[in-house]
Amino acid sequence: MRISELSTRSGVAIPTIKYYLREGLLRQGEQTAATRAEYDDSHLRRLRLVRALLEVGKLPVASIKKIIDAVDDESLPMHEMLGTAHYALGPTVEPEPGEEWQAARAQVDALIEEQGWHIHPEAPTRDELAQTLVRMRQLGVRIDLRPYVEAARKLVAEVEMRTIPFDGPRDAAVEALVLGSVLYGKAFDALRRMAQEAESAHRLG
Amino acid sequence: MRISELSTRSGVAIPTIKYYLREGLLRQGEQTAATRAEYDDSHLRRLRLVRALLEVGKLPVASIKKIIDAVDDESLPMHEMLGTAHYALGPTVEPEPGEEWQAARAQVDALIEEQGWHIHPEAPTRDELAQTLVRMRQLGVRIDLRPYVEAARKLVAEVEMRTIPFDGPRDAAVEALVLGSVLYGKAFDALRRMAQEAESAHRLG
Repeated sequence: MRISELSTRSGVAIPTIKYYLREGLLRQGEQTAATRAEYDDSHLRRLRLVRALLEVGKLPVASIKKIIDAVDDESLPMHEMLGTAHYALGPTVEPEPGEEWQAARAQVDALIEEQGWHIHPEAPTRDELAQTLVRMRQLGVRIDLRPYVEAARKLVAEVEMRTIPFDGPRDAAVEALVLGSVLYGKAFDALRRMAQEAESAHRLG
Repeated sequence: MRISELSTRSGVAIPTIKYYLREGLLRQGEQTAATRAEYDDSHLRRLRLVRALLEVGKLPVASIKKIIDAVDDESLPMHEMLGTAHYALGPTVEPEPGEEWQAARAQVDALIEEQGWHIHPEAPTRDELAQTLVRMRQLGVRIDLRPYVEAARKLVAEVEMRTIPFDGPRDAAVEALVLGSVLYGKAFDALRRMAQEAESAHRLG
Protein backbone atom coordinates (compact mmCIF):
# COMPACT_ATOMS: atom_id res chain seq x y z
CA MET A 1 0.00 0.00 0.00
CA ARG A 2 1.04 3.63 -0.47
CA ILE A 3 1.60 6.03 2.43
CA SER A 4 -1.89 7.53 2.00
CA GLU A 5 -3.54 4.14 2.52
CA LEU A 6 -1.24 3.37 5.43
CA SER A 7 -2.40 6.64 6.98
CA THR A 8 -6.08 5.88 6.44
CA ARG A 9 -5.86 2.33 7.74
CA SER A 10 -3.74 3.21 10.80
CA GLY A 11 -5.47 6.49 11.65
CA VAL A 12 -2.04 8.17 11.83
CA ALA A 13 -1.60 11.40 9.82
CA ILE A 14 0.94 11.37 6.95
CA PRO A 15 3.27 14.00 8.52
CA THR A 16 3.34 11.91 11.71
CA ILE A 17 4.20 8.78 9.71
CA LYS A 18 7.04 10.73 8.04
CA TYR A 19 8.26 11.84 11.46
CA TYR A 20 8.30 8.21 12.67
CA LEU A 21 10.25 7.22 9.53
CA ARG A 22 12.87 9.94 10.20
CA GLU A 23 13.16 8.95 13.88
CA GLY A 24 13.60 5.29 12.98
CA LEU A 25 10.39 4.25 14.79
CA LEU A 26 9.03 2.86 11.51
CA ARG A 27 11.02 0.93 8.91
CA GLN A 28 11.31 2.60 5.48
CA GLY A 29 8.93 1.24 2.86
CA GLU A 30 10.14 -0.44 -0.29
CA GLN A 31 11.12 2.28 -2.76
CA THR A 32 9.25 1.57 -6.04
CA ALA A 33 9.96 4.93 -7.70
CA ALA A 34 11.86 8.12 -6.84
CA THR A 35 8.96 9.59 -4.86
CA ARG A 36 7.00 6.45 -4.12
CA ALA A 37 7.32 3.70 -1.49
CA GLU A 38 5.25 0.63 -0.74
CA TYR A 39 4.21 -0.36 2.80
CA ASP A 40 2.74 -3.63 4.11
CA ASP A 41 0.99 -5.13 7.12
CA SER A 42 4.19 -5.13 9.17
CA HIS A 43 4.18 -1.30 8.92
CA LEU A 44 0.58 -1.21 10.00
CA ARG A 45 1.35 -3.40 13.03
CA ARG A 46 4.36 -1.25 13.90
CA LEU A 47 2.24 1.93 13.80
CA ARG A 48 -0.25 0.35 16.20
CA LEU A 49 2.62 -0.47 18.56
CA VAL A 50 4.09 3.04 18.41
CA ARG A 51 0.68 4.57 19.09
CA ALA A 52 0.12 2.22 22.02
CA LEU A 53 3.49 3.16 23.53
CA LEU A 54 2.90 6.89 22.96
CA GLU A 55 -0.77 7.32 23.76
CA VAL A 56 -1.43 4.61 26.33
CA GLY A 57 2.05 4.09 27.82
CA LYS A 58 2.79 7.87 27.65
CA LEU A 59 6.43 7.05 26.90
CA PRO A 60 8.90 9.58 25.47
CA VAL A 61 10.14 8.98 21.91
CA ALA A 62 13.65 8.03 23.12
CA SER A 63 12.23 5.17 25.23
CA ILE A 64 10.04 4.05 22.35
CA LYS A 65 13.11 3.90 20.10
CA LYS A 66 14.84 1.57 22.59
CA ILE A 67 11.80 -0.72 22.69
CA ILE A 68 11.51 -0.78 18.89
CA ASP A 69 15.21 -1.69 18.65
CA ALA A 70 14.64 -4.56 21.08
CA VAL A 71 11.63 -5.78 19.07
CA ASP A 72 13.68 -5.70 15.86
CA ASP A 73 16.67 -7.49 17.38
CA GLU A 74 15.54 -11.06 16.68
CA SER A 75 18.54 -12.45 18.55
CA LEU A 76 17.13 -11.03 21.81
CA PRO A 77 15.01 -13.64 23.64
CA MET A 78 11.30 -12.80 23.96
CA HIS A 79 11.46 -12.49 27.75
CA GLU A 80 14.23 -9.86 27.57
CA MET A 81 12.50 -7.95 24.81
CA LEU A 82 9.30 -7.80 26.85
CA GLY A 83 11.41 -6.71 29.85
CA THR A 84 12.73 -3.71 27.91
CA ALA A 85 9.19 -2.49 27.26
CA HIS A 86 8.05 -3.36 30.71
CA TYR A 87 10.81 -1.53 32.56
CA ALA A 88 10.19 1.59 30.46
CA LEU A 89 6.56 1.71 31.65
CA GLY A 90 7.38 2.26 35.32
CA PRO A 91 8.57 5.43 37.03
CA THR A 92 12.30 5.96 37.48
CA VAL A 93 13.22 5.73 41.14
CA GLU A 94 16.60 6.74 42.55
CA PRO A 95 17.78 4.75 45.59
CA GLU A 96 18.22 7.02 48.64
CA PRO A 97 21.22 6.91 50.94
CA GLY A 98 20.70 5.64 54.49
CA GLU A 99 19.64 2.67 56.55
CA GLU A 100 15.92 3.22 56.08
CA TRP A 101 16.26 2.60 52.36
CA GLN A 102 18.52 -0.42 52.88
CA ALA A 103 15.97 -1.98 55.23
CA ALA A 104 13.06 -1.39 52.83
CA ARG A 105 15.05 -2.75 49.90
CA ALA A 106 16.01 -5.85 51.92
CA GLN A 107 12.32 -6.36 52.73
CA VAL A 108 11.47 -6.21 49.01
CA ASP A 109 14.23 -8.67 48.09
CA ALA A 110 13.09 -11.07 50.81
CA LEU A 111 9.52 -10.86 49.57
CA ILE A 112 10.56 -11.72 46.01
CA GLU A 113 12.65 -14.64 47.26
CA GLU A 114 9.78 -15.91 49.39
CA GLN A 115 7.40 -15.80 46.41
CA GLY A 116 9.88 -17.71 44.29
CA TRP A 117 9.58 -14.95 41.68
CA HIS A 118 12.27 -14.76 38.99
CA ILE A 119 12.95 -11.05 38.91
CA HIS A 120 16.13 -9.49 37.55
CA PRO A 121 18.48 -8.26 40.34
CA GLU A 122 18.52 -4.84 38.62
CA ALA A 123 14.75 -4.69 37.94
CA PRO A 124 13.53 -1.12 38.63
CA THR A 125 10.41 -2.43 40.37
CA ARG A 126 12.59 -3.44 43.35
CA ASP A 127 13.52 0.19 44.04
CA GLU A 128 10.04 1.37 43.18
CA LEU A 129 8.45 -0.76 45.87
CA ALA A 130 11.27 0.07 48.33
CA GLN A 131 10.56 3.79 47.87
CA THR A 132 6.86 3.32 48.61
CA LEU A 133 7.70 1.33 51.75
CA VAL A 134 10.07 4.11 52.92
CA ARG A 135 7.39 6.79 52.38
CA MET A 136 4.85 4.69 54.28
CA ARG A 137 7.18 4.24 57.20
CA GLN A 138 8.03 7.96 57.26
CA LEU A 139 4.35 8.86 57.24
CA GLY A 140 3.37 6.30 59.84
CA VAL A 141 1.29 4.13 57.50
CA ARG A 142 1.56 0.46 58.39
CA ILE A 143 0.99 -2.03 55.66
CA ASP A 144 0.66 -5.76 55.42
CA LEU A 145 1.80 -6.45 51.85
CA ARG A 146 0.69 -10.07 51.72
CA PRO A 147 -2.89 -9.54 50.54
CA TYR A 148 -1.57 -7.24 47.79
CA VAL A 149 1.06 -9.75 46.69
CA GLU A 150 -1.57 -12.46 46.54
CA ALA A 151 -4.02 -10.30 44.54
CA ALA A 152 -1.30 -9.17 42.09
CA ARG A 153 -0.09 -12.73 41.57
CA LYS A 154 -3.57 -14.00 40.90
CA LEU A 155 -4.75 -11.24 38.55
CA VAL A 156 -1.54 -11.34 36.52
CA ALA A 157 -1.36 -15.12 36.17
CA GLU A 158 -5.07 -15.78 35.69
CA VAL A 159 -6.13 -12.77 33.63
CA GLU A 160 -3.48 -10.40 32.30
CA MET A 161 -0.79 -12.71 30.96
CA ARG A 162 -3.37 -14.83 29.16
CA THR A 163 -4.03 -11.95 26.78
CA ILE A 164 -0.42 -11.89 25.54
CA PRO A 165 0.21 -13.81 22.27
CA PHE A 166 3.64 -15.19 23.18
CA ASP A 167 3.81 -17.26 20.00
CA GLY A 168 2.83 -14.55 17.50
CA PRO A 169 4.87 -11.66 16.02
CA ARG A 170 7.05 -9.79 18.54
CA ASP A 171 5.27 -6.47 17.85
CA ALA A 172 1.95 -7.95 18.86
CA ALA A 173 3.30 -9.37 22.14
CA VAL A 174 4.85 -6.05 23.19
CA GLU A 175 1.70 -4.18 22.24
CA ALA A 176 -0.48 -6.52 24.29
CA LEU A 177 1.89 -6.21 27.28
CA VAL A 178 1.83 -2.41 27.21
CA LEU A 179 -1.92 -2.11 26.69
CA GLY A 180 -2.68 -4.71 29.32
CA SER A 181 -0.25 -3.38 31.88
CA VAL A 182 -1.43 0.22 31.62
CA LEU A 183 -5.16 -0.28 31.02
CA TYR A 184 -5.74 -3.02 33.60
CA GLY A 185 -3.86 -0.77 36.04
CA LYS A 186 -6.18 2.16 35.32
CA ALA A 187 -9.28 0.01 35.57
CA PHE A 188 -8.17 -1.43 38.89
CA ASP A 189 -7.38 2.03 40.24
CA ALA A 190 -10.87 3.31 39.45
CA LEU A 191 -12.43 0.16 40.94
CA ARG A 192 -10.39 0.56 44.12
CA ARG A 193 -11.64 4.10 44.56
CA MET A 194 -15.21 2.94 43.93
CA ALA A 195 -14.82 0.24 46.57
CA GLN A 196 -13.45 2.87 48.97
CA GLU A 197 -16.47 5.10 48.48
CA ALA A 198 -18.85 2.17 48.88
CA GLU A 199 -17.08 0.96 52.02
CA SER A 200 -17.04 4.47 53.50
CA ALA A 201 -20.81 4.77 52.80
CA HIS A 202 -21.33 1.38 54.41
CA ARG A 203 -19.37 2.22 57.57
CA LEU A 204 -20.59 5.77 58.01
CA GLY A 205 -24.25 5.55 57.23
CA MET B 1 4.35 26.93 70.59
CA ARG B 2 5.89 29.68 68.44
CA ILE B 3 6.21 29.46 64.67
CA SER B 4 9.87 28.36 64.93
CA GLU B 5 8.94 25.33 67.03
CA LEU B 6 5.99 24.54 64.73
CA SER B 7 8.48 24.56 61.86
CA THR B 8 10.94 22.27 63.65
CA ARG B 9 8.29 19.80 64.77
CA SER B 10 6.48 19.65 61.43
CA GLY B 11 9.57 19.74 59.22
CA VAL B 12 7.95 22.56 57.20
CA ALA B 13 10.09 25.70 56.63
CA ILE B 14 8.84 29.00 58.17
CA PRO B 15 8.31 30.78 54.79
CA THR B 16 6.19 27.79 53.66
CA ILE B 17 4.13 27.96 56.87
CA LYS B 18 3.57 31.69 56.24
CA TYR B 19 2.48 30.89 52.69
CA TYR B 20 -0.04 28.34 53.97
CA LEU B 21 -1.35 30.93 56.46
CA ARG B 22 -1.85 33.49 53.66
CA GLU B 23 -3.58 30.92 51.41
CA GLY B 24 -5.91 29.86 54.22
CA LEU B 25 -4.58 26.28 54.31
CA LEU B 26 -3.56 26.76 57.95
CA ARG B 27 -5.62 28.58 60.59
CA GLN B 28 -3.99 31.71 62.06
CA GLY B 29 -2.34 31.18 65.47
CA GLU B 30 -3.51 33.01 68.57
CA GLN B 31 -2.02 36.51 68.51
CA THR B 32 -0.22 37.01 71.86
CA ALA B 33 1.69 40.18 70.89
CA ALA B 34 1.95 42.40 67.81
CA THR B 35 4.58 40.17 66.14
CA ARG B 36 3.97 36.94 67.98
CA ALA B 37 1.42 34.14 67.61
CA GLU B 38 0.93 30.85 69.44
CA TYR B 39 0.25 27.56 67.66
CA ASP B 40 -0.95 24.23 69.05
CA ASP B 41 -1.25 20.54 68.12
CA SER B 42 -4.17 21.22 65.79
CA HIS B 43 -1.79 23.32 63.64
CA LEU B 44 0.73 20.50 63.65
CA ARG B 45 -1.92 18.01 62.53
CA ARG B 46 -3.11 20.38 59.82
CA LEU B 47 0.44 20.78 58.49
CA ARG B 48 0.77 17.01 58.27
CA LEU B 49 -2.48 16.87 56.28
CA VAL B 50 -1.43 19.64 53.89
CA ARG B 51 1.91 17.94 53.28
CA ALA B 52 0.21 14.60 52.66
CA LEU B 53 -2.14 16.19 50.10
CA LEU B 54 0.71 18.08 48.41
CA GLU B 55 3.54 15.57 48.45
CA VAL B 56 1.77 12.22 48.35
CA GLY B 57 -1.53 13.16 46.68
CA LYS B 58 0.25 15.63 44.31
CA LEU B 59 -2.82 17.88 44.47
CA PRO B 60 -2.80 21.55 43.38
CA VAL B 61 -3.24 24.18 46.12
CA ALA B 62 -6.75 25.09 44.91
CA SER B 63 -7.93 21.47 45.44
CA ILE B 64 -6.27 21.34 48.84
CA LYS B 65 -8.11 24.51 49.86
CA LYS B 66 -11.44 22.85 48.98
CA ILE B 67 -10.57 19.79 51.05
CA ILE B 68 -9.45 21.90 54.02
CA ASP B 69 -12.73 23.84 53.84
CA ALA B 70 -14.65 20.54 53.90
CA VAL B 71 -12.62 19.32 56.90
CA ASP B 72 -13.34 22.58 58.76
CA ASP B 73 -17.07 22.55 57.98
CA GLU B 74 -18.21 20.49 60.97
CA SER B 75 -21.77 20.44 59.66
CA LEU B 76 -20.63 18.31 56.72
CA PRO B 77 -21.08 14.58 57.43
CA MET B 78 -17.85 12.56 57.61
CA HIS B 79 -18.71 10.51 54.52
CA GLU B 80 -19.16 13.63 52.36
CA MET B 81 -16.02 15.22 53.72
CA LEU B 82 -14.00 12.12 52.84
CA GLY B 83 -15.68 12.12 49.42
CA THR B 84 -14.38 15.64 48.73
CA ALA B 85 -10.80 14.51 49.36
CA HIS B 86 -11.32 11.27 47.56
CA TYR B 87 -12.75 12.75 44.36
CA ALA B 88 -9.85 15.23 44.21
CA LEU B 89 -7.32 12.36 44.13
CA GLY B 90 -8.52 10.90 40.83
CA PRO B 91 -7.91 12.18 37.32
CA THR B 92 -10.52 14.45 35.73
CA VAL B 93 -12.25 12.66 32.89
CA GLU B 94 -14.53 14.35 30.37
CA PRO B 95 -17.38 12.23 28.99
CA GLU B 96 -17.08 11.79 25.21
CA PRO B 97 -19.96 12.13 22.78
CA GLY B 98 -21.22 9.02 21.02
CA GLU B 99 -22.72 5.61 21.55
CA GLU B 100 -19.47 3.90 22.48
CA TRP B 101 -19.19 6.07 25.59
CA GLN B 102 -22.87 5.58 26.48
CA ALA B 103 -22.47 1.82 26.30
CA ALA B 104 -19.33 1.80 28.47
CA ARG B 105 -20.93 4.11 31.00
CA ALA B 106 -24.04 1.89 31.13
CA GLN B 107 -21.78 -1.11 31.74
CA VAL B 108 -20.12 0.73 34.67
CA ASP B 109 -23.47 1.73 36.18
CA ALA B 110 -24.74 -1.85 35.88
CA LEU B 111 -21.62 -3.17 37.57
CA ILE B 112 -22.05 -0.79 40.52
CA GLU B 113 -25.71 -1.76 40.83
CA GLU B 114 -24.84 -5.46 40.71
CA GLN B 115 -22.24 -5.05 43.46
CA GLY B 116 -24.76 -3.20 45.65
CA TRP B 117 -22.22 -0.40 45.98
CA HIS B 118 -23.47 2.98 47.22
CA ILE B 119 -21.70 5.34 44.87
CA HIS B 120 -22.83 8.88 44.16
CA PRO B 121 -24.53 9.25 40.73
CA GLU B 122 -22.05 12.06 39.94
CA ALA B 123 -18.95 10.25 41.28
CA PRO B 124 -16.03 10.91 38.87
CA THR B 125 -14.90 7.27 39.14
CA ARG B 126 -17.89 6.26 36.96
CA ASP B 127 -16.57 8.26 34.00
CA GLU B 128 -12.99 7.27 34.79
CA LEU B 129 -13.76 3.57 34.45
CA ALA B 130 -15.98 4.22 31.41
CA GLN B 131 -13.07 5.95 29.66
CA THR B 132 -10.75 3.01 30.30
CA LEU B 133 -13.36 0.59 28.94
CA VAL B 134 -13.76 2.72 25.79
CA ARG B 135 -9.97 2.79 25.22
CA MET B 136 -9.80 -0.98 25.69
CA ARG B 137 -12.55 -1.57 23.20
CA GLN B 138 -10.95 0.80 20.66
CA LEU B 139 -7.60 -0.96 21.04
CA GLY B 140 -9.07 -4.44 20.89
CA VAL B 141 -8.25 -5.39 24.49
CA ARG B 142 -10.89 -7.63 25.96
CA ILE B 143 -11.30 -7.57 29.71
CA ASP B 144 -13.26 -9.52 32.24
CA LEU B 145 -13.69 -7.00 35.05
CA ARG B 146 -15.00 -9.45 37.64
CA PRO B 147 -11.67 -10.64 39.10
CA TYR B 148 -10.61 -6.98 39.44
CA VAL B 149 -13.83 -5.98 41.14
CA GLU B 150 -13.48 -8.85 43.57
CA ALA B 151 -9.82 -8.03 44.36
CA ALA B 152 -10.58 -4.31 44.85
CA ARG B 153 -13.54 -5.05 47.12
CA LYS B 154 -11.51 -7.41 49.26
CA LEU B 155 -8.37 -5.29 49.62
CA VAL B 156 -10.36 -2.15 50.42
CA ALA B 157 -12.70 -3.75 52.95
CA GLU B 158 -10.19 -6.04 54.64
CA VAL B 159 -7.04 -3.91 54.59
CA GLU B 160 -7.28 -0.29 53.50
CA MET B 161 -10.39 1.00 55.26
CA ARG B 162 -9.28 -0.55 58.54
CA THR B 163 -6.44 1.98 58.74
CA ILE B 164 -8.83 4.95 58.75
CA PRO B 165 -9.67 6.35 62.22
CA PHE B 166 -13.32 7.19 61.57
CA ASP B 167 -13.92 8.18 65.17
CA GLY B 168 -10.90 10.50 65.64
CA PRO B 169 -10.32 14.09 64.47
CA ARG B 170 -11.48 14.84 60.91
CA ASP B 171 -7.95 15.86 59.83
CA ALA B 172 -6.59 12.47 60.79
CA ALA B 173 -9.27 10.56 58.87
CA VAL B 174 -8.70 12.54 55.67
CA GLU B 175 -4.94 12.16 56.01
CA ALA B 176 -5.22 8.40 56.43
CA LEU B 177 -7.56 8.16 53.43
CA VAL B 178 -5.19 10.11 51.17
CA LEU B 179 -2.04 8.31 52.30
CA GLY B 180 -3.69 4.91 52.10
CA SER B 181 -5.35 5.48 48.76
CA VAL B 182 -2.20 6.76 47.04
CA LEU B 183 0.46 4.60 48.71
CA TYR B 184 -1.40 1.28 48.57
CA GLY B 185 -2.06 2.08 44.90
CA LYS B 186 1.64 2.62 44.24
CA ALA B 187 2.63 -0.54 46.12
CA PHE B 188 0.09 -2.61 44.22
CA ASP B 189 1.26 -1.19 40.90
CA ALA B 190 4.87 -2.19 41.57
CA LEU B 191 3.76 -5.64 42.74
CA ARG B 192 1.68 -6.13 39.61
CA ARG B 193 4.67 -5.37 37.41
CA MET B 194 6.83 -7.74 39.48
CA ALA B 195 4.24 -10.48 39.05
CA GLN B 196 4.20 -9.78 35.30
CA GLU B 197 7.97 -10.18 35.05
CA ALA B 198 7.89 -13.37 37.13
CA GLU B 199 5.04 -14.81 35.06
CA SER B 200 6.80 -13.90 31.80
CA ALA B 201 9.99 -15.63 33.06
CA HIS B 202 7.92 -18.65 34.06
CA ARG B 203 6.19 -18.97 30.68
CA LEU B 204 9.16 -18.15 28.48
CA GLY B 205 12.05 -19.81 30.15
